[in-house]
Parts: sequence; C-alpha cells; structure tokens
Amino acid sequence: MALKPNPDYSVFETEITVRPDDIDMNNHVHNSKYLDYLLMARYDQMKKDYKVPMEEFVQKGYTWVASSTCIDFLREIKLGDKIVVRTQVNSFEGAHVKVNFWIVKKETNKVAAEGHSDYVLISTASGRPTRIPEEIIEKYNI
Amino acid sequence: MALKPNPDYSVFETEITVRPDDIDMNNHVHNSKYLDYLLMARYDQMKKDYKVPMEEFVQKGYTWVASSTCIDFLREIKLGDKIVVRTQVNSFEGAHVKVNFWIVKKETNKVAAEGHSDYVLISTASGRPTRIPEEIIEKYNI
Amino acid sequence: MALKPNPDYSVFETEITVRPDDIDMNNHVHNSKYLDYLLMARYDQMKKDYKVPMEEFVQKGYTWVASSTCIDFLREIKLGDKIVVRTQVNSFEGAHVKVNFWIVKKETNKVAAEGHSDYVLISTASGRPTRIPEEIIEKYNI
Amino acid sequence: MALKPNPDYSVFETEITVRPDDIDMNNHVHNSKYLDYLLMARYDQMKKDYKVPMEEFVQKGYTWVASSTCIDFLREIKLGDKIVVRTQVNSFEGAHVKVNFWIVKKETNKVAAEGHSDYVLISTASGRPTRIPEEIIEKYNI
Repeated sequence: MALKPNPDYSVFETEITVRPDDIDMNNHVHNSKYLDYLLMARYDQMKKDYKVPMEEFVQKGYTWVASSTCIDFLREIKLGDKIVVRTQVNSFEGAHVKVNFWIVKKETNKVAAEGHSDYVLISTASGRPTRIPEEIIEKYNI
Repeated sequence: MALKPNPDYSVFETEITVRPDDIDMNNHVHNSKYLDYLLMARYDQMKKDYKVPMEEFVQKGYTWVASSTCIDFLREIKLGDKIVVRTQVNSFEGAHVKVNFWIVKKETNKVAAEGHSDYVLISTASGRPTRIPEEIIEKYNI
Repeated sequence: MALKPNPDYSVFETEITVRPDDIDMNNHVHNSKYLDYLLMARYDQMKKDYKVPMEEFVQKGYTWVASSTCIDFLREIKLGDKIVVRTQVNSFEGAHVKVNFWIVKKETNKVAAEGHSDYVLISTASGRPTRIPEEIIEKYNI
Repeated sequence: MALKPNPDYSVFETEITVRPDDIDMNNHVHNSKYLDYLLMARYDQMKKDYKVPMEEFVQKGYTWVASSTCIDFLREIKLGDKIVVRTQVNSFEGAHVKVNFWIVKKETNKVAAEGHSDYVLISTASGRPTRIPEEIIEKYNI
C-alpha cells in the first residue's frame, strides 16, 4: 500500500550517491543504510529547504533524536543507482514531529522504500524532551 | 507502550559488544546500528537456537530479506554498555515471518529499543518470494 | 611531508558529500571512513576517467582487492565540509597496481589525508592474483 | 614479510565477533572495518590491560587521534570466522605513540592483516598535540 503525501506540507528532496561501502553481501544497499540516507536527507533539507540547519538547533541548546521509525523495504538499490530521498512533515505534537519519507530510484521514479519517523526535540541542558517552539513550527510549516 | 512477547514462541538472546565505530556525533550508538544489532542477533539465533544457519538456507537456494521494520528508540546506548538482543517469531504467513525484538541493557534489564520486523523468504533462482517450507516452520516453531 | 604526484600519470578527482553517519564521537569524520571515500573515488574514476568500470572487470572474470594501504591523517573533516578525493596510478607490477591518493578539503584545497594503496587483480575462477593484462595497463596509462 | 613483535613491550589481545553488516559485496569483511576492529581492540586493551580507559583520558582533558596507519591485507575474513586482534606499543616520541597490530584468525592463528598505527595525544583545551605525560608512559610500559 503506497504511502500518500500529506497535502498540507511540502515534500522536499535530496539526491544521494550510493557508495560501495553501502553494499552488503546480498549485493545491494544494506537495509540499515536506508536510515542513514534518510538522516542525510533531513540534514540537507533542514538547511536547504527549512532554513534552520542542525547547527542552529545546537547553538540554541537543542538536539533532535529519532524516537521511532517504520520502514517498508520495497525494492533493492544497487551500486550505480541514482537515489532521491523525499521527506515532508506530517504533524507536530508537543516535543514531537512526525515525518513521512520516500526513498526513490531516480531513473524509474519507483519507490525503493517508504515510511515515517518520529523525532523528538531534546533540550541539551536538561537532556529531556521540550515542546517545539512556535518559531520553529512556523519555519517547518511550508 | 511495552511490546509484549507472544507466549506461543520462545524468546532467544544474543549478547552484543558495542564498538567505538557504532557511536555517532551524539555520543551514543547511532540509530541505524540498532538494525545491525538485530541482524546480528537473528544470524546468531538461526544457528544457535533454531539450528538452521543462514548458510543452510543459501545452500538450499533461499535467502531472507527484510520487508519492513518498525522500531521504537526508548533509551540511548553508550560505549561500554552491555547489550542483549532478544527476538522471537510472532507469526508465519506464506513467504513471510514476523519477528518481535527487544534491545536490552544487560545491567539494568531496561529496554533500549523494541519493535518488529517482517522478513520474506526469497528463492535465489527466481528472485521472488516463496512460501516458507513446512520443515522450516517446524524448526522455528519453538 | 607532502606526497608528490607522479608526473607520469594523470590525477583524477571525485567529489564526496560527507554524511551524518560518517561522523564519530569526536565530531569529525571517522578515520575508517577515509578508506571508504577512497574506494568510492576509485569506483567513480574507473568508470568516468579510465572508462573501464568495475562491472567490466567482473564480467571478464576479475576482481580488484586491496592488498595494502598507508594513510596519513592530516586534518579533521567535519559535517558540511566539501571533499574532493584525488587519485592517480603510481606504478604497475605483475598483478599489482599502486595508487596515490589525496583527500582534500574543497574550500581551502588543504589536504585532510594522503597516502597510497596497493591493489591486486584477482582471477575469479582461481581466486588467485593474475597479471594485469596489457589492454588494461594501456587504459590506465593516462 | 611478517611484522615482528617488539620484544620490549607486551602484546595484548581482544576477541572480535564479525557482524553481518561488516561483510561487503565481495562476501568478506570490508577492508575499512579492519581499522574499526583495531580501534575496538585498543579501547578494550586500554581498559583491560593498561588500566587507563579512554574515559580517564577524556576526564583529564586529553583525547587520542590516529595520525597515520599502514596495513597489509593478507587474508580475507568471512562471516563466522573468529578474530583476535593483537596490539602492542612499539615506541613513544613526544605526543606520539606507535602501535603494532595483528588481526588474526583464531582457529588457524594465521594473520589476516597486520600493520602499525601512530596515535597523537591531543589536549582538549588547546586542540593541539601535547607531550604524553610520564605517568601514562609508565602505565603503557608493560
């Protein structure tokens, strides 16, 4: 069942080049590397699209931590494949933001994996979750 | 919400030693490494507990591929922590087996992450999913 | 002491984007990842510059394996740094090719690491080293 | 040519379990993982054998960084192989310590890789190399 984008939020994208060290004994991209591709895309899009790079969160005394991820592996990715990672915000709640993602093969536009992750904003000082400030929600509200 | 073991199947366990290269910029085990710990545990338990090592599947013309994973990250794991990965079969259906898992801190018995993965049996010859043979289900039925 | 390029062979280059999962607990690129960046660059340059992609070797019954690497780590690489990996052939001998490499920060052109690797051509059939064919040496002789 | 141990210093060892995610498309342990095994062994032996764990260095305002590594890859390591990493101090000079290492297959005692690494002690405050204190040299002088 395909994951439908939430029409209320923009979908952004990041191109990823598969590296030989991403390939495992089955001769395709190792499944845990999909989470690394997703993380790479979020970092890239925080800076490029939301205009609040991770460094700015760190300076303000925050960090983001994944609290859950669900991923469907639909197609294998091989060395030489061009990959696009699309993500969008799905919802905010307190300290949490839920993000939808699609890892897509560029040449065919077929989805290699899709799913959603929940991230929680942590206050570096307390080490505990902290409500996402309105000014951040506004910037992500695109 | 804690994931309850399925009383119909045994829970097996594998100890994992955290390596320095598993630690990321947040100074704890990188989140994609949790999937690598799970994979390590399944390989170990296939051999040690189910008595059908991965090599035997490969010799018989099969391989296992993850088709989905859901994971809740509950506690950070640090370098020096002792980790136990517990897994159990939850159900079989056609070519699929669903597995529950818990990544636990050995010293406190607290759950650092938990979730479930769905694996599909692939026929190497056809490259397509193939019904799990009864003899395999029997061996896993413990 | 800087590694001087061998004037007899071209130096080719590949841009690499640092991923968050490359960063370790010291908050810079983990040292083993430098070897992964080198491998990525060699794959890219085999296809782009030497016009003999790895796949062609595999089809002809060959594979390349690293037999030694020496690397000097000169500067740390941080997330957000743009990296260029330069490599060149240094010499051929029997089944071996020696390659020089420089991992450079794009913005400053400063060398973050440099060294040399020795690769050996393996015959897939025998699993043993095999003399590099003249036609390959010619293609690499640029 | 085999690397001979320096008779002036003890050789310590650490067992490593190969993980499935260490295996690459050639169906053996990926070459950059050898450096991760070495790092794992040094951390383990700092605590277990030298009795100065990395955490103690960090508390005292120091960190260790690799400044160079030379490694010969002699035999492939496969999933299921039992590995022992042996290391010893070879010499001290100013801020530097040179370490010899051997990555050995436990069952055959054959060397899969060997080489030496140079590490430099960094003062966290200045971010610069700092002479290794006499009390540290004494503890390592076994």
